[in-house]
Amino acid sequence: MRIAVEELARTLAGILIARGMDEGRAELCARLFAETDRDGVYTHGVNRFPRFVKMIDAGAIDAHAAAACAARMGSLERWDGARGPGNLNAHACMARAIALAREQGIGCVALAHTTHWMRGGSYGWQAADAGMIGICWTNTLPNLPPWGGRAPRLGNNPLVVAVPRSKGHVVLDMAMSQFSYGALAAHRKRGELLPVEGGFDDDGKLTRDPAAIERSQRPLPIGYWKGSGLSLALDMAAAMMAGGLATHRIPADPEREIGVCQMFVALHAAVFADAEAIADGVIASLGGVRYPGERVLRIREENLARGVPVDDTTWSEVQRLASG
Amino acid sequence: MRIAVEELARTLAGILIARGMDEGRAELCARLFAETDRDGVYTHGVNRFPRFVKMIDAGAIDAHAAAACAARMGSLERWDGARGPGNLNAHACMARAIALAREQGIGCVALAHTTHWMRGGSYGWQAADAGMIGICWTNTLPNLPPWGGRAPRLGNNPLVVAVPRSKGHVVLDMAMSQFSYGALAAHRKRGELLPVEGGFDDDGKLTRDPAAIERSQRPLPIGYWKGSGLSLALDMAAAMMAGGLATHRIPADPEREIGVCQMFVALHAAVFADAEAIADGVIASLGGVRYPGERVLRIREENLARGVPVDDTTWSEVQRLASG
Repeated sequence: MRIAVEELARTLAGILIARGMDEGRAELCARLFAETDRDGVYTHGVNRFPRFVKMIDAGAIDAHAAAACAARMGSLERWDGARGPGNLNAHACMARAIALAREQGIGCVALAHTTHWMRGGSYGWQAADAGMIGICWTNTLPNLPPWGGRAPRLGNNPLVVAVPRSKGHVVLDMAMSQFSYGALAAHRKRGELLPVEGGFDDDGKLTRDPAAIERSQRPLPIGYWKGSGLSLALDMAAAMMAGGLATHRIPADPEREIGVCQMFVALHAAVFADAEAIADGVIASLGGVRYPGERVLRIREENLARGVPVDDTTWSEVQRLASG
Repeated sequence: MRIAVEELARTLAGILIARGMDEGRAELCARLFAETDRDGVYTHGVNRFPRFVKMIDAGAIDAHAAAACAARMGSLERWDGARGPGNLNAHACMARAIALAREQGIGCVALAHTTHWMRGGSYGWQAADAGMIGICWTNTLPNLPPWGGRAPRLGNNPLVVAVPRSKGHVVLDMAMSQFSYGALAAHRKRGELLPVEGGFDDDGKLTRDPAAIERSQRPLPIGYWKGSGLSLALDMAAAMMAGGLATHRIPADPEREIGVCQMFVALHAAVFADAEAIADGVIASLGGVRYPGERVLRIREENLARGVPVDDTTWSEVQRLASG
């Protein structure tokens, strides 16, 4: 079925308000979920909402906690997320990085003790909509073996780089594993091999069989040793700047993945009059090859017009949450 | 043969001084080349020096030009590299980003109209030695097809992330192609296949044959579509912030690769007393798996003690430059 974006947002907000969340915060939190579906990132929108509510009900996420500044040095701030809702915390920190960049050209907020930010790309779009280049990343629970190791000591640590452009922002939102566990499951269910090697099987051989990788729990970092190194560096930088937990200290259970660290950097691109033309020149030079974020605008238009696709099971689950 | 690091630096500096370069600048430029060999990055040390001198003699690199601030907004600056020596320009801009971060927590310098920075990792070590997390990247001439295209419209745009740690910095220095053309040639000469697929052959099939990739000029971005997107975003961000040339406007001839853009970001990690222990905890959690930069310290120690390995041909070429 398809549900109008506004109806979806209203329904989710109602569920949060019923749990005592402040109305303004509930509306923003619900809007961030609904806009994730609107933009076609169905893994992290309404499909993730029941688990999000479950974690609130279990006390893992504190619905009432808001991120706050813990230390400041010029254009750099450390914030404490206090286990609040991850998308609200992340949105507040990118908003603050943007405000710092408006004053100082560049702003950085390092956030500790927060929870899953859901779609990382949301905060890239937020920065780009403000005329900023936005760079943000998060660490995660351990789910990726380092190159040269077998145990999942690294996180897949998604990295977002957003470049503003009035004809369509470029928004890259990529995890450090070649395929997420969600993507592996989706391929397995369709009975398809992965388009490229995605991890190791139990014998330590590279494979395109998604089930073999789910069994071994050894997905492949992008670029082998390169993505492994980048994941490590991103984890260290986020935890050190935020003063919070690095991946190896985050519980390996998705329902207890709390205390993660995130970095939000905004660069005031729009202050330079020539930036827009430079961006347009690069996109024109691609000769029609698709850029990251390009498809989102078309999906967004369609989903705004027709409503977002929601499967029956998820919608029933949401309805149950709304009525009880 | 092995040449003492100090002798190597003195010899290279003499060659630059003979070409009219200011003595202090010549010594720093030569030291950056010699330290690249000292640290075991033999592709971008003395082996690149003859080409560097050739580009000075041809007027492509202006030995007398120094990078200077062109625009400032708080902690963000735009610098103009004026086609000066790439390693001097990059060193000056990272030094400036570090100074800004000392005042403001974070500093960013965007550099336009510069030339090849040689070893990108140098500026990562520079930042880490100052107690900073250093993040820098450069765009390059077009040498990498975007995912979904055949022509090399992207650059391999090396990205450096350096994390300071008194027991040994973590310094990641990685290009967006899985293997550099230098690595492809080295494998071909040894008659070896690549350890993993490194690009496409002329038929558009992924291959581990280095010669096939050299022929097709279609190396693979790390993580396929992911590295392709990251390369694009890094190019756009550097060119837009610096106000300079994006990859598609940079001449595709290595000896005329001038006018590139670079970004230098420093984050004042050392200001936080807990950062060091967090970094040590992450490294300990790897259980002995090697981190980026770990090997450099051992190679450095050996090369300082025994001199750096230089092959006879290169050393004869350097001697010729020194005597004429």
